[in-house]
Amino acid sequence: MGAPPTGASFHEMWRDLAPIGRHAETGGYRRYAWTGADTDCRAWFQAQAETRGLTYELDRNGNQWAWLGDPTAEDAVVTGSHLDSVPDGGAFDGPLGVVSSFAALDELRARGAHPTKPLAIVNFGDEEGARFGLACVGSRLAAGQLAPEQAHALRDGDGVTLPQAMERAGYDPEAIGPDPERLARIGAFVELHIEQGRALDDTENPVGVASAIWPHGRWRFDFHGEANHAGTTRLDDRRDPMLTYANTVLAARKKARLAGALATFGKVGVEPNGVNAIASLVRGWLDSRAPDEETLAAVVGEIERAAVERGQRDGVDVRVTRESFTPVVEFAHDLRDQLSGLLGGVPVLPTGAGHDAGILSASVPTAMLFVRNPTGVSHSPAETAGEDDCLAGVAALAQVLEGLACH
Amino acid sequence: MGAPPTGASFHEMWRDLAPIGRHAETGGYRRYAWTGADTDCRAWFQAQAETRGLTYELDRNGNQWAWLGDPTAEDAVVTGSHLDSVPDGGAFDGPLGVVSSFAALDELRARGAHPTKPLAIVNFGDEEGARFGLACVGSRLAAGQLAPEQAHALRDGDGVTLPQAMERAGYDPEAIGPDPERLARIGAFVELHIEQGRALDDTENPVGVASAIWPHGRWRFDFHGEANHAGTTRLDDRRDPMLTYANTVLAARKKARLAGALATFGKVGVEPNGVNAIASLVRGWLDSRAPDEETLAAVVGEIERAAVERGQRDGVDVRVTRESFTPVVEFAHDLRDQLSGLLGGVPVLPTGAGHDAGILSASVPTAMLFVRNPTGVSHSPAETAGEDDCLAGVAALAQVLEGLACH
Repeated sequence: MGAPPTGASFHEMWRDLAPIGRHAETGGYRRYAWTGADTDCRAWFQAQAETRGLTYELDRNGNQWAWLGDPTAEDAVVTGSHLDSVPDGGAFDGPLGVVSSFAALDELRARGAHPTKPLAIVNFGDEEGARFGLACVGSRLAAGQLAPEQAHALRDGDGVTLPQAMERAGYDPEAIGPDPERLARIGAFVELHIEQGRALDDTENPVGVASAIWPHGRWRFDFHGEANHAGTTRLDDRRDPMLTYANTVLAARKKARLAGALATFGKVGVEPNGVNAIASLVRGWLDSRAPDEETLAAVVGEIERAAVERGQRDGVDVRVTRESFTPVVEFAHDLRDQLSGLLGGVPVLPTGAGHDAGILSASVPTAMLFVRNPTGVSHSPAETAGEDDCLAGVAALAQVLEGLACH
Repeated sequence: MGAPPTGASFHEMWRDLAPIGRHAETGGYRRYAWTGADTDCRAWFQAQAETRGLTYELDRNGNQWAWLGDPTAEDAVVTGSHLDSVPDGGAFDGPLGVVSSFAALDELRARGAHPTKPLAIVNFGDEEGARFGLACVGSRLAAGQLAPEQAHALRDGDGVTLPQAMERAGYDPEAIGPDPERLARIGAFVELHIEQGRALDDTENPVGVASAIWPHGRWRFDFHGEANHAGTTRLDDRRDPMLTYANTVLAARKKARLAGALATFGKVGVEPNGVNAIASLVRGWLDSRAPDEETLAAVVGEIERAAVERGQRDGVDVRVTRESFTPVVEFAHDLRDQLSGLLGGVPVLPTGAGHDAGILSASVPTAMLFVRNPTGVSHSPAETAGEDDCLAGVAALAQVLEGLACH
């Protein structure tokens, strides 16, 4: 665990990545797909591959691959994650998986382990969806879960389309599309990721294995009231959608708590959004997740009922639109049990977050390793993991890669 | 009441103004200070003055004046209002006062009334403050209630300063500042305005006289929590400021209702404002107004206490900043009683809205006439007033001007 070569290569890579896309004021990362910061991360990835004498490949969807062994052979073992970030994200979400992959490979080589299968490290493009609003674009395209026409229609907040952004970054947007042969050559995909919660911390384990990704979705709640003057309109004459929104936020928390689910309003838009104007429209986005799809449907249904009921009282019309939905993802049970065995029975735990591993699991035997997050904070500059735990993650990943690829 | 010449001139003016700055989709007006739409409104004002043979004047603060009689003589009678709008405002707020002023003058002339005092119609610049965030800039500058340095520092949402905007519209920003001699020559200012509520509708009167403007202010509530992943953070581990905000919105409504006051959250800003991110910061602006300052202070204090209390439960830090405050404005009692007498005892009512008349009242005997608003809707494209009521407003204003200037 944490032998000198691994630790040294981990630290060096971590130090090189640290300044890229870091916002001076917030300390958070702004590594959005196909921007300058993303380009710098990609150049770093390619340099890491070349330094190690790995075969560097860019696939048709802009995902980067670094191969030890024959990229065209069957039954490859692949690990990796992503390098892009949410707005003001932390340093670990994504990069920990990529850096640990290279460090685990260094560890295997230092041990003199000889892979009998092709082994690859991957950096999936645009995992967070921070720029174009859709997560896991690189893996979705490869897995045929996103049509090229749909991807071509994606726009960022400035109206730049995904093809325009790819082209400006030097990539060919016409090439994007399903990549079934590539995925068919993968025998196992393992993604290491910082845990986005405190389950490992509670069990006092530095590393765990994922069981499943909770079903989750996004629902847009449009609360339509009537714009009016905040200084002159009697309370009884108002149709104020902010009241209905506020009540729905509190109802969502309560319903989720009672059902053991999660429900969050984290994004809001208001029209006209003036200090002395009663809003005509409040638009709130609900993110909800639950252990199973039945519970999720029940929670969202109850939140919607609460919104409509309060809306009637406020004279506010409520419309709910499901913007996205991802069913439950059960990771391959064989692979999960194999990993747990290789690591000596570490905890097996579910997660509420989506990942490229969740997308790939429909096409490829897929597993995930989680590294302890002592505060549970994620998608924030305050996200952190201990140095010993990161190196334990590298050691575990090396163990897994050796078990999967060297025997 | 509504004799042919008045009605005809009113309709013609109304028709000419109607298309200026009207947004095709919302049907609301976007006549922001020193924009193209504002320039068009100003050109219309100047043309109205010239058509009638009135002396047109532009003062140092960009307010427009149309004089019948000597602009330099004492004891002038002035009427008018403003032509700019809030975002997606209605057609009446401001323009009804300016159009009614010209129509009332036409009515006086048609009657053969001869003013013995100078009579002026004014269009105050930037009354709504929609662009630079501060209301009544034109009248505040003239009355010495806004220092030129402060005005110079105002910026719009695109970072354009007020001087830059004035300059681009062809005005000299270096000239702005107090105009005490001009105000000292005014013996009475009367502003006609659409009522922004339904008090007249309840009493079945088309026209009323203002008693006072309620004290009012704006308070910014900053709710500081912790950004985190909406899909993975357990409810108990969250510090979600959206919950505290939501509870404060509902508390504000309740406290205002119990005190007979008004309290509104109509503007919100969220960071990072991502669908799958628990907010780190929710910023909500409270607009509150009450019949007296003591009640207002009590209501705002109770809302702040409720916010802090809930914040402790949510792990959210609450900071409240008073951004603006306007004490109660009592309009000149003599003038108010004189108007009420001239109009045969119409209702006298308070209002919660600020006006140029409120600013001027500190320097000049000032009064306001309100025209019935059957829906009470204001600051919205749905704002409306009946044709008969508008013409009744013109007749009442003509009556008042005759009473004040012709005897």
